[in-house]
Amino acid sequence: MRIAIDAMGGDNAPDEIIAGALESIELLAEDVELILVGPAETIEPQLPSLKSRKGAISVVHAPDVIGMDEPPIGSLRKKPKSSIATIAKLAKRGQVDAVISAGNTGACVAAFQMRMRNLPGVNRPGIAVVFPTFEGPVTICDVGANIACKPIHLYQYAVMASIYSKHLLGIENPRAGLMSIGAEDAKGNEVVKKARELMKADTNMNFVGNIEGRDIFKGICDVAICEGFVGNVILKLTEGLVDGLFKAIKHELMEEKLRLAMKFKPVMTRIYKKYDYNEYGGALLLGINGTAVICHGSSRSRTIKNAILASKTYYTKRINDKITEYLSQTPFDDQLQGLQTQKSALGNSQNANPQKLA
Amino acid sequence: MRIAIDAMGGDNAPDEIIAGALESIELLAEDVELILVGPAETIEPQLPSLKSRKGAISVVHAPDVIGMDEPPIGSLRKKPKSSIATIAKLAKRGQVDAVISAGNTGACVAAFQMRMRNLPGVNRPGIAVVFPTFEGPVTICDVGANIACKPIHLYQYAVMASIYSKHLLGIENPRAGLMSIGAEDAKGNEVVKKARELMKADTNMNFVGNIEGRDIFKGICDVAICEGFVGNVILKLTEGLVDGLFKAIKHELMEEKLRLAMKFKPVMTRIYKKYDYNEYGGALLLGINGTAVICHGSSRSRTIKNAILASKTYYTKRINDKITEYLSQTPFDDQLQGLQTQKSALGNSQNANPQKLA
Repeated sequence: MRIAIDAMGGDNAPDEIIAGALESIELLAEDVELILVGPAETIEPQLPSLKSRKGAISVVHAPDVIGMDEPPIGSLRKKPKSSIATIAKLAKRGQVDAVISAGNTGACVAAFQMRMRNLPGVNRPGIAVVFPTFEGPVTICDVGANIACKPIHLYQYAVMASIYSKHLLGIENPRAGLMSIGAEDAKGNEVVKKARELMKADTNMNFVGNIEGRDIFKGICDVAICEGFVGNVILKLTEGLVDGLFKAIKHELMEEKLRLAMKFKPVMTRIYKKYDYNEYGGALLLGINGTAVICHGSSRSRTIKNAILASKTYYTKRINDKITEYLSQTPFDDQLQGLQTQKSALGNSQNANPQKLA
Repeated sequence: MRIAIDAMGGDNAPDEIIAGALESIELLAEDVELILVGPAETIEPQLPSLKSRKGAISVVHAPDVIGMDEPPIGSLRKKPKSSIATIAKLAKRGQVDAVISAGNTGACVAAFQMRMRNLPGVNRPGIAVVFPTFEGPVTICDVGANIACKPIHLYQYAVMASIYSKHLLGIENPRAGLMSIGAEDAKGNEVVKKARELMKADTNMNFVGNIEGRDIFKGICDVAICEGFVGNVILKLTEGLVDGLFKAIKHELMEEKLRLAMKFKPVMTRIYKKYDYNEYGGALLLGINGTAVICHGSSRSRTIKNAILASKTYYTKRINDKITEYLSQTPFDDQLQGLQTQKSALGNSQNANPQKLA
């Protein structure tokens, strides 16, 4: 297996990316090769000569870098030799089996979608993030790939995230919830209401109905489905709130007694580690015809290492085959098609690569 | 001033509602009267004879109760004599100056909007909640009144929440942020992008641009604007996450040392109290022609007491006059009108009471 890593992606590139790649090598089987992609003159001096495994890491030169704040489509057009564009091209040509980047999320989604295309039967890819909660891991999809969601997209996210949850997290019959603003059928906007019908119609899915924001942490679902805008707010709000709350706790403890604060520090560190979603190694772009992991822009070496391991597991467990099989062979297919035809506004379309670069 | 309180609203009604009303009396001036609305036979036996202030509390009989999970419009149609419908009617007839309920939020919004109508110049009311953060209070609007937001609605929420923040929270020149999925202009869905243009065009507004979920807790804005679906997810996610995190901390502390957990308990309690948004006394329904406070379904007496005090301040400070004045006299009005005409899809309409009951 060959894994291409965007060496220039994220706020801590290239140092932490290269460090993460090096850390992962000892944990990978002999047949896994890592390809660092970026300006060769930057990367090569940082690579030690690996005595243990010659050829475990190589470099593919890509002179340009897309900044974290550049407009995705425009920057890909302007910088066809950027590291993001290059890893996408390597995947397209079949030269690598997985791609990883902590760079500009929008540019990654656009490049991967355009070059690697969607899996058969999938209309739009979605980013899945695993939230480690007190009650167990919850897979949330989509957290930002698709901000113009149609009901069929949400339904497919539920299928893909459930398969991911089952085969990667080992949850036997994942309970899928649909993010809304109330548990009742009538709650939610039009897209959510129609997605709900599709999810209900799929008797193979363990659909537990609408969920609310608070339910993610209550152990009532293993998979939480939402459109990209909402999921992105959820992801970033959680980050900000956890940081803010820990800051408040620290402040209160300091006011109370410095010694108490010192005692509490290791507890905080342990909680941080236990509930850090970076531990899961970034976010899978589900629905793409290949294996693509998108990491947080602030990723450090540990996240990159975990992302490499996650991409290997995803690839090895043939998750994509399982998704394709599910979507093509579901016994409820006719019923679902009927529902789609009946409600033409559901927004199904198979030619769904709306972002065109050229 | 006369304040009508839905005695039957919420999970802890009527006991906690009545208790909250009684608690507030000593904090209110002589000229404030409270009217508890609900089944007289349930409420009256619970009212002590108030020696301090005769006539400070009275009861208006309303035999029916709308359940928390009933469909809003349908239940109002079926139960015109419910406590929610009754407080709305009292406000419509000018018999009370403010209404408060911890009951079915959808039913409250629908009843208040239909009976009390919107403020002149306001298209759709929005629910504003104050989040107490480490960096100061942040007013979030809308958190669930309007899940079919148009750009003009978001713009008006920014106006109203800014006025609220200034005059009720004492923030001199509130910084308004627009919830999106990235700081850049190009980020966000179509509604957000157009709302951004409107907010930019209003030079009287202290608009700080797009914000992301994490920014609520970072002290970069005093007001956060979002559509009701997103705001509702934010509100409930925050609740669930704080609960979940405290549970995790408690668990870790117990594993560590029971004595440490005991020491940490008062700190937790203090943080809970400091960062409890119920302390602000529920959520104001901004944009309604009157004073309407909607409380959390799980409200206890303290929240109800604070809601009563908040409604009094809102009314006394004549916030609605300030909103109407701002919307009618803004010097950028022509420009805004131009922007609206130019982009007919912005969705402005003055006859905006889309929820019809009869």
